[in-house]
Amino acid sequence: MLDHQQIDELATFALELADAAAAVTLPHFRSGLAVDHKAGDHKFDPVTAADRDGEAAIRKLILERYPDHGILGEEHGNHTGTSGLTWVLDPIDGTRSFISGVPLWGTLIALNDGTRPVIGLMDQPYIGERFIGRPGGSELIGPQGTMPIKTSACTKLEDALLGNTDPGMFKVDAEKAAFREISSKVKLRRFGGDCYFYCLVAAGTLDLVIESALQPYDIQALIPVIENAGGVVTNWTGGDPQQGGQVVAAATPELHEAALKILRSAAA
Amino acid sequence: MLDHQQIDELATFALELADAAAAVTLPHFRSGLAVDHKAGDHKFDPVTAADRDGEAAIRKLILERYPDHGILGEEHGNHTGTSGLTWVLDPIDGTRSFISGVPLWGTLIALNDGTRPVIGLMDQPYIGERFIGRPGGSELIGPQGTMPIKTSACTKLEDALLGNTDPGMFKVDAEKAAFREISSKVKLRRFGGDCYFYCLVAAGTLDLVIESALQPYDIQALIPVIENAGGVVTNWTGGDPQQGGQVVAAATPELHEAALKILRSAAA
Repeated sequence: MLDHQQIDELATFALELADAAAAVTLPHFRSGLAVDHKAGDHKFDPVTAADRDGEAAIRKLILERYPDHGILGEEHGNHTGTSGLTWVLDPIDGTRSFISGVPLWGTLIALNDGTRPVIGLMDQPYIGERFIGRPGGSELIGPQGTMPIKTSACTKLEDALLGNTDPGMFKVDAEKAAFREISSKVKLRRFGGDCYFYCLVAAGTLDLVIESALQPYDIQALIPVIENAGGVVTNWTGGDPQQGGQVVAAATPELHEAALKILRSAAA
Repeated sequence: MLDHQQIDELATFALELADAAAAVTLPHFRSGLAVDHKAGDHKFDPVTAADRDGEAAIRKLILERYPDHGILGEEHGNHTGTSGLTWVLDPIDGTRSFISGVPLWGTLIALNDGTRPVIGLMDQPYIGERFIGRPGGSELIGPQGTMPIKTSACTKLEDALLGNTDPGMFKVDAEKAAFREISSKVKLRRFGGDCYFYCLVAAGTLDLVIESALQPYDIQALIPVIENAGGVVTNWTGGDPQQGGQVVAAATPELHEAALKILRSAAA
């Protein structure tokens, strides 16, 4: 178990990692603006470079500072440490947003203590926003300053604002049907968010996010942000979400249970 | 016809109008953060207040400075001027984004010369971005400075990045089928943008936006931004889009025609 002082130190280090990633990723975002475009430009290249180089920048700092820490990254695979602590990284979550010029992608950084992610950070450097969660609370550090965040008090699907990146992520009929049923019950539905939507659940402006086909590095950083803001995040059976797959994040235990009642029928 | 100097003066005034609107709307955005939430909070209230008061702030400035200009606003209706010039306003385009805490809503301000919108502005004050278009060019004024923008060189659906706010906006079967057909052909599809996506077409990071059921004040400010960046925006018959309804915005005439070939069958 990490003590309070270690958590503080590692959370500060996570912010340094985000700074290093942003220095590499941000110049690639909308990098084609104000240049002459040629037909057939390879639009997928900037995000590939940003993803690869962003993770390399983070890994370098971890290996220098904490060589005994493990690393699990999307781009460069696994480095097994000896400390029991592992950094779980996704330099660009929301590659489609990144490619499209939409500033809702994020750099995801989690510290996993061997049982679960204990520190989680989502950084959106174009807007200048970062959401960080750790034992004791979650915070938004943004253009309007730093403020503690907490989830909404929403307990019913009928009152809920629902977020999802793209309904096309549901490949199985049972998943599609469950998502459609919940969509038909909620107050408002919003697409296009990736990691950003989970942070808005933590911040209390969205109430529910339902997704599928996530990777561990897509969700681990978001778990401490949501849980330490008062929310609940699990897979669709109500179990540990850290391996990804089907995920549901909710503002309150009651809303989470209301969503699970429908999602369980489609749980893998 | 407005001369170059008049355009400059009125474009500068449009930026002042956006400042005045932002001072009113921004404090309502995510206004529930870091307060104790009660079950049953009326989440729709902040956007209603921001919409109404944002438009009132803009109208006041126009009536003081240019009392002979007309005003067409979403919230407070029509004021007929004597100059032949009309300001077309939507203080919060993307109310669902606003409600959900997603910073992709915008304040839309157009100046219509009686035949068409000649100056258009989209302001996103949380990010600190504004897209402005007028004869001579379009610009992005943002956190990374001011830069001219132009549309991409994309000419084929197969290479296109497509944006749409929510496919639920298509109510008629023919519209749904046409959108599905285009979705199946493009390289990448992205939901959730409202006015922001049209500006990304102007900026060259998206190539195509296809929508329906727009109001005149939803589209007029975006027309000069897209056209003066090199793009094409029409209704689904290829005609003047300023009355809203079914709208298609494309990076190039060729891409626009490729989309129209499919959309015409569903044109109202």
